[in-house]
Amino acid sequence: MAGQVGITFILLVLGSCWGLQNNDVDEEPQLVFQPSKYGSLWPLPQKVQISEVSLKLSSSSFRIIDAKESRAGASCSLLQLAYRRYYEYMFGGVKKQKVNKSVRTDPTELPELQVWITSPESECDGYPAVSSDESYELSVDQPFAVLKAPKVWGALHGLETFSQLVYEDEYGAKSINSSAISDFPRFAHRGVLLDTSRHFLPLKVLLANLETMAMNKFNVFHWHIVDDPSFPYLSQTFPELSQKGAYHPYTHVYTPADVKMVIEFARLRGIRVVSEFDTPGHTQSWGKGQPDLLTPCYAGSKPSGTFGPVNPILNSTYDFMGQFFKEISTVFPDAYVHLGGDEVDFTCWKSNPDIQRFMEQQGFGQDYSKLESFYIQKLLDIVTTTNKGYIIWQEVFDNGVKLKPDTVVHVWIGSGTNSEMSKVTAAGYTTILSAPWYLDYISVGQDWQKYYRVEPLNFNGTEEQKKLVIGGEACLWGEYVDATNLTPRLWPRASAVAERLWSAKEVTDIGDAYSRLSVHRCRLVVRGIPAEPLSPSFCPHEYKGI
Amino acid sequence: MAGQVGITFILLVLGSCWGLQNNDVDEEPQLVFQPSKYGSLWPLPQKVQISEVSLKLSSSSFRIIDAKESRAGASCSLLQLAYRRYYEYMFGGVKKQKVNKSVRTDPTELPELQVWITSPESECDGYPAVSSDESYELSVDQPFAVLKAPKVWGALHGLETFSQLVYEDEYGAKSINSSAISDFPRFAHRGVLLDTSRHFLPLKVLLANLETMAMNKFNVFHWHIVDDPSFPYLSQTFPELSQKGAYHPYTHVYTPADVKMVIEFARLRGIRVVSEFDTPGHTQSWGKGQPDLLTPCYAGSKPSGTFGPVNPILNSTYDFMGQFFKEISTVFPDAYVHLGGDEVDFTCWKSNPDIQRFMEQQGFGQDYSKLESFYIQKLLDIVTTTNKGYIIWQEVFDNGVKLKPDTVVHVWIGSGTNSEMSKVTAAGYTTILSAPWYLDYISVGQDWQKYYRVEPLNFNGTEEQKKLVIGGEACLWGEYVDATNLTPRLWPRASAVAERLWSAKEVTDIGDAYSRLSVHRCRLVVRGIPAEPLSPSFCPHEYKGI
Repeated sequence: MAGQVGITFILLVLGSCWGLQNNDVDEEPQLVFQPSKYGSLWPLPQKVQISEVSLKLSSSSFRIIDAKESRAGASCSLLQLAYRRYYEYMFGGVKKQKVNKSVRTDPTELPELQVWITSPESECDGYPAVSSDESYELSVDQPFAVLKAPKVWGALHGLETFSQLVYEDEYGAKSINSSAISDFPRFAHRGVLLDTSRHFLPLKVLLANLETMAMNKFNVFHWHIVDDPSFPYLSQTFPELSQKGAYHPYTHVYTPADVKMVIEFARLRGIRVVSEFDTPGHTQSWGKGQPDLLTPCYAGSKPSGTFGPVNPILNSTYDFMGQFFKEISTVFPDAYVHLGGDEVDFTCWKSNPDIQRFMEQQGFGQDYSKLESFYIQKLLDIVTTTNKGYIIWQEVFDNGVKLKPDTVVHVWIGSGTNSEMSKVTAAGYTTILSAPWYLDYISVGQDWQKYYRVEPLNFNGTEEQKKLVIGGEACLWGEYVDATNLTPRLWPRASAVAERLWSAKEVTDIGDAYSRLSVHRCRLVVRGIPAEPLSPSFCPHEYKGI
Repeated sequence: MAGQVGITFILLVLGSCWGLQNNDVDEEPQLVFQPSKYGSLWPLPQKVQISEVSLKLSSSSFRIIDAKESRAGASCSLLQLAYRRYYEYMFGGVKKQKVNKSVRTDPTELPELQVWITSPESECDGYPAVSSDESYELSVDQPFAVLKAPKVWGALHGLETFSQLVYEDEYGAKSINSSAISDFPRFAHRGVLLDTSRHFLPLKVLLANLETMAMNKFNVFHWHIVDDPSFPYLSQTFPELSQKGAYHPYTHVYTPADVKMVIEFARLRGIRVVSEFDTPGHTQSWGKGQPDLLTPCYAGSKPSGTFGPVNPILNSTYDFMGQFFKEISTVFPDAYVHLGGDEVDFTCWKSNPDIQRFMEQQGFGQDYSKLESFYIQKLLDIVTTTNKGYIIWQEVFDNGVKLKPDTVVHVWIGSGTNSEMSKVTAAGYTTILSAPWYLDYISVGQDWQKYYRVEPLNFNGTEEQKKLVIGGEACLWGEYVDATNLTPRLWPRASAVAERLWSAKEVTDIGDAYSRLSVHRCRLVVRGIPAEPLSPSFCPHEYKGI
C-alpha cells in the first residue's frame, strides 16, 4: 500500500537513529529506532487507530474551516489564528500557487479539516482553567476530516494531533493516513516552570517556549517570576520593586504590556499562566525597592546590614502584601496564584531581638516554623480576599499551616516523595508533583527515560487520594540557563514529562516512546525550536541556527 | 580618575553576578563577582600592565593599520580581514558617520593601532603549525597603540587582546586604558575536538565555533570527522564512502569545497585543522561504501552478517589505506594527521576463522593486541610515506606499537592519567592531554572550575619529560550535541581549558578567573555566540536568539 510505504519512509527519514555509542561515555541502555505504529504522535493520544489508507493534502487548496454546525465561528479569533499556525506548520516551505479546480478529480485527496465545537459555550474568549474540557475527537477520512471538541481547548490539541499525523511521502507529497483518534488528558495540570529571576529571559524566549509547550500539550506555564537574585516584574503599584530589584530597570523587566502579551499568547494556545511570588524566603530582591519589608539580621546586638526573609512581625508587611496581591490578582487572570513558601532560613529571624520578643509574646517558644506559619496564614487570608486559589510548595503543608480545602500542594523535595504524596492526599489536598522532574539537574545520557518512567500515582493511598493528584510540572530552575541555552536544555527532555502527564497510565513502552520522540524532536527542529538530540542520529533538516 | 570609573562601571554592568543560589540544587562553592584588575582579559596574558589613564576610541576615525616598518603590508589579506573583523567586534552597533577633523583636538583620543610584523617572514600566506611563533607585544599609549609580533599568528592574538581591553565608559564612549602587554602561550597545542560523525554539524556551526576558538586563543581544531555512526567526509578517491556511509549523501556531507572553507576560515584565525580518521575500530560507517574493508564477524562457523574493525589481514586493506591517506595528506595541509587507534574491540576478530589462522601464522598466540599493533604499524608506515606526522590515542602507545620519534600521543583515559603521562613522556614521546577535559560529561553547577584547576604537568617526571607535553584539547564528543545545543554547551566551559593552556602556570586564582570569565562570556554573547551562563547573573545585552 502506498500509505504504508509513505509512513515507513517518513519515519526513516525523520528519525533514523543509531544504537552505536562512543565507549568513552557510560550511559543508559541504548534504544534502537524502530518506526512506531503510532508514527510520531507525541504525547500519545488515548485512543488511536491509523489505517493504511493514505490521503494527500494540497498546500494550495487544503483548508481548515469551521464546521457548519460549530458553536464557534469566524468570530473566534483563537481558532482562526490556530488554523493559520497549523497550516504554516504543515506546509511551511512548500506553499504553491492556488490552483482553480472546478471538479475535484483525485479521490485520494483530503480537501479539508472541519473543526466543530460542540458545546454551546465554546470558551473562545475565556481563559483555560484546571477544570477545562480538553478532549477532542479526530476523524481523518473522505470526504473530509472532522475535529470535534466540546471547547476550543480540545480543538487546539486536536489541531496539533492532526499536524502530527501529516507526513511527506517518498516524493515529498504531504500525506495523512485515514485515522480515528479520541483523546483527553490523564491529568488536568501539566506544567513547565521557568525561572526569570536567576536569569532574565527575554520575551522572545518565553514565547518560543510557550509555543513548544503547546506542541507537547502542556497547559500550565508556572512563571517563577521573581526570587532572590532579581525582581523583573514591573509592578504598577510598587514600581520601585523592579526599579531597584531588577538586574536593570529598563532592559531586564517585564512591563505590564509584556505580561499581557505572555498571558494572551499562552491563552491562544490553551495554556494557563500561573505566576509565583514566593515569600517569605527567596525575597532578597524585594528588599531593595521596599524598605522594611525584609527582616534586618543582627550580628550580636547590632544590625549587620544584611536582611533575611520577609519581616512577619510588622503590620506594614501585611499592608504591602495586601496591595501587592490585589494587583497580582487583576494582572494574572488565572484562578490560582503560586505563593511559594519554600526553604525559609530561620538564621536571620533568630538573630533579631524584635523577632525574639514577638516569638515570646506569641508563645511560639523556639519553634520558628510557627512564626513562618503565622506569616503564611496571614498571607493566605490576604490572597483569599482577592478571590484567588493558591498553590504552595510542600513545606507550607509540612509545617501544619491551616489551608483552604481547595489549596494545591506542590511536592518538590526529591527524598521521601512518595510518603509526602501519601500524606498530602490523605489530608485531602489537591497535589501536583515536580520532585522527579527537576530538569536543571543534568547528566550525560538519556535522562528523558528517567523522567518518562515516573508513575505519579505510585504511592500508598486510596483511589480517592489518587484522584487528588491533578498533575505535575517539569521545573527548569534558572541558575545555569538563559537565552543562550534554555530552549535546547528544556526540549525534548520536558516532552517526556508531557507524555507522562497526558497519555494513559499504560503507555510505558520506552522503545516505542524513543522512536516517536526521536521524530517529534526533529519536528520541533523543523518548526524552528532548537530541541536537542536524544542519541547519535540526524534530522533531515538540521537546525538552521548555531 | 575617569579611567578607573570607566573600568569599574563596565565590569559591573557586563558582569554583575550573584552569590545567591537556589537551595534546590547542590553545587560547587559559589564565587562572588569582584571586578578583576585585569578587566575581562581571557585568557590572561603572560605580562599585563594596565594603567588608570583612559583613552577614547572614535568609531568614525579609529583605524587599525599596518605599521610603516611592518614586514606584512596591504597584500596580507589575513591581516586586512582581521582588522575588519576586530573593528566590527569593537564598534559593532555604534558606527558613526566619518567626521572630517583637520586637527585632532582631544588629547585623550587614541587614533590608531599600528600592527607591526617584525620578522622578514610574516607567514601571512602560510599555515599555522605546532612550532609557530604566537607571541606579541602590545603597547596602548599616545600617540598611537602598537602591536608588535614576529609573525601574523601573534598579531591575530594581539588583536583579540586589544579588543578585550576596549570597554564602554559610563556614557557609552568606547574607551581603552593605557596598557603594556607582553604575551605568548604556555603550550603550543591548544585544541578543541568536535565530532561530526555522531551528529552532523552544519558548516555554519563549525565556522561559528572556529570564530569562538579564536576569541579564546585556541589554535587547533581537532576534526573527529568520521566514526561508527556516519561518514560525512566526501572523498574524491572513494566517493562511495560518504555516498553510502553518510547520514545523507547530499545534505549531511562535507564536500571538498566545504573542507577547504573550514581550513581557510581556520587559517585566517591562526587555527590548525587536524583531521582524525580513526581506525581500525570506530569504522562501522566506512564498511558501507568499501566492501571487504571491515572484518566479517562469525556466529559459530558462519558469517553473522555483522562487521568488526578494519580487516588487518588483507592486502586490499592496505592498498585502500594507502590511497585514502594520500588524498587526506593533500586535502589537509596540516603537518599532522590524527590516526585514532582507540578502543578496538577484539570480539569480532576472535570469531573469524581467517583471522584466527593469520594469528597462528604470525605467532601472535591469543594476543589480539599484537594483531592490532600489526595493523597500526603498517598504517603508520603508509602515512609516513605521505610526509605527515601523526597523532594517536594512547592505546597505540600502551600496546607497544613502534612509533616514530615525532609521534604525538594523545592521553584521554580518565583513570591513571598521571602515570600514563609519566610513561609516555619517559618513553620520549610528545604528548597532548585530554583526559580531564571531556566536555561531553555534564553536571549541574560550575564544572568549568574543575577544568580550570587541572595542571597538565602535575605528574612524576623530569623537566625534560614535562617539556614533551605540548598541550591539550577540550573534547566534545557528539552523542548528545548537534546544531541545536553544541555552541552553548561548549562555551564558556572550553574557555577554562583555553586559559589553562595559554596562561602562566601561576595563574590559578579561581575568583579572579570567575570575574574575568563572567565578562568574557557576556562578550561572546554580544559577538553573537550563545555562550551559556556561569551562575545567576545577567549580561547587559542578552542573547538575541532563542
